[in-house]
Amino acid sequence: MTKAYQVVGIGNALVDVIAHIEEGFLADHRVERGIMQLIDRDRAVELYGHMGPAREISGGSAANTIAGLAALGARTAYVGKVKDDQLGAIFAHDLRAQGADYDTPTAPRDHGHETGRCMVLVSPDGERSMNTYLGVSEFLAPSDIDEGLVADADWIFLEGYRFDGPDSHAAFAKAIRATRASGGRVAITLSDPFCVERHRDAFLAMIRADVELLVANEHELKSLYLTDDLARAMDRAEAEIPITACTVGARGAHILTRGTRVHAPAAGTRVVDVTGAGDLFAAGLLHAITSGRDWLTALRMGNVAAAEVISHLGARPEADLRDLFAAEGLS
Amino acid sequence: MTKAYQVVGIGNALVDVIAHIEEGFLADHRVERGIMQLIDRDRAVELYGHMGPAREISGGSAANTIAGLAALGARTAYVGKVKDDQLGAIFAHDLRAQGADYDTPTAPRDHGHETGRCMVLVSPDGERSMNTYLGVSEFLAPSDIDEGLVADADWIFLEGYRFDGPDSHAAFAKAIRATRASGGRVAITLSDPFCVERHRDAFLAMIRADVELLVANEHELKSLYLTDDLARAMDRAEAEIPITACTVGARGAHILTRGTRVHAPAAGTRVVDVTGAGDLFAAGLLHAITSGRDWLTALRMGNVAAAEVISHLGARPEADLRDLFAAEGLS
Repeated sequence: MTKAYQVVGIGNALVDVIAHIEEGFLADHRVERGIMQLIDRDRAVELYGHMGPAREISGGSAANTIAGLAALGARTAYVGKVKDDQLGAIFAHDLRAQGADYDTPTAPRDHGHETGRCMVLVSPDGERSMNTYLGVSEFLAPSDIDEGLVADADWIFLEGYRFDGPDSHAAFAKAIRATRASGGRVAITLSDPFCVERHRDAFLAMIRADVELLVANEHELKSLYLTDDLARAMDRAEAEIPITACTVGARGAHILTRGTRVHAPAAGTRVVDVTGAGDLFAAGLLHAITSGRDWLTALRMGNVAAAEVISHLGARPEADLRDLFAAEGLS
Repeated sequence: MTKAYQVVGIGNALVDVIAHIEEGFLADHRVERGIMQLIDRDRAVELYGHMGPAREISGGSAANTIAGLAALGARTAYVGKVKDDQLGAIFAHDLRAQGADYDTPTAPRDHGHETGRCMVLVSPDGERSMNTYLGVSEFLAPSDIDEGLVADADWIFLEGYRFDGPDSHAAFAKAIRATRASGGRVAITLSDPFCVERHRDAFLAMIRADVELLVANEHELKSLYLTDDLARAMDRAEAEIPITACTVGARGAHILTRGTRVHAPAAGTRVVDVTGAGDLFAAGLLHAITSGRDWLTALRMGNVAAAEVISHLGARPEADLRDLFAAEGLS
């Protein structure tokens, strides 16, 4: 029986606040380059006060992936928490307008936190340094997981960043149970090497028990297996996960399945802002997997979608991804 | 004595909500192409529900001009009303981060309207059709005008759109009085041909009594003087206004002063979104005037600043305008 959704994503619902910076800004304001750092509200206010003029574009890692999948015509839904405030309305609008279902209960106006946001500082070379005030996204609880929704999905796609937050593990556990009970499959992204550092044991336990598809970049995969040797990390992943997709930056991406390894070079583009590269890689990959394509096609779709999103500011696709796929013979 | 500000702008404080549209969208949703239409909250909700994924960038016509001037190093301040809400905080941040002073009293949280926004629909050819929910910006009152602030300005720059709203004329009158009493000068932009249609008599009365610099495009100038003949409209303007700057789209812009007419062709660029073209033309022009440049330089600075802003989405400058001026020998 065809399920209602090909992919349901679960993640931190955030609006990105994006500004270009000069290289010295990071050191001056104690921001780590190229990673995601969690910040509290006071730090968010302080940092915003130093940032130049910005623009706001809906973000959130898994939400970006779901937006990309929806743009490709996939049947998708998203689970993540915003508040009943203006940024929450923007986030919800942008996801629904892209064609994804999004009905997670909204935090009420008297909630002590606002809709979460990520201050994205884009360096002259396109690298992004992310400063996330999780806001209400941190409080996604098991009660926010609609078991009927995830049971009606071929895949659930879990965002590694969502391992932060008090009830996150319980919420994921509930989603995984309902998904697997209905024959659905579990995919996860590791999100960030320092996120892996914070939650390595939980990641590994979930991976070994439930995950059929792992999406990671080389730094995250090495962090997961506590090694500096990518080949060794890939061997470990291949041994314990049915499908691993590992991006290796400008060198492209690999898929490791038990017994088969496939590599595809990156799609060329002019890099403006690398934010969302991994998210859109996952979108192209999941689109291919859920529509029965071969592994090389899956990698190429992932790479083309990633190339689109890094060619402009913001982590949501701007060009028509289907046109780009068609231009590469991937339709 | 040097005044604190070279230019103080007064206008509707808005955040732009920008989305690309297919050409058919305008007809399907009864939106007039290429102009600004005022909409109420219900219509704003309805239209937003039909819009695709968007991005939010601070806007507001005079605020864009002030942002451009601030980016050029001019001493500027802005007067316009936002609410104590998230969009209001974004608007205030972006203006201050650009270097402009902005201290208009904020509407309190229990105000019945929100910070205003403009839904900017960008057609494939880069034309923009604007749908403005004024929100609290409509309620800028005489009490919001700090007479000390405008008295300390060489120029005040009044946004034509601000003629809409219950207390707008009284607020402008107060600002003009205080400015002129201290030897300051009054500039005005006509904003939009239909705005001129709504307020022609008030525009003309103010122009004849107080205005030393009029900034308009050809459609607005023709609407002001109720003629289809641009040459005739320009003659009328020249006869009654010390300085008129009239943009003529891709054909560039004219300055008419009593006895002197200067024209400069448009600066070439790839058009992505024409929103803000007139606002940034005014920024370049006012920068030149307030720093004592000749008329041709003023037009060229206006044209280069306009070309920058139409080369990307959003009405605030992204590139360093000073670098662009230098590249054109305008430094």
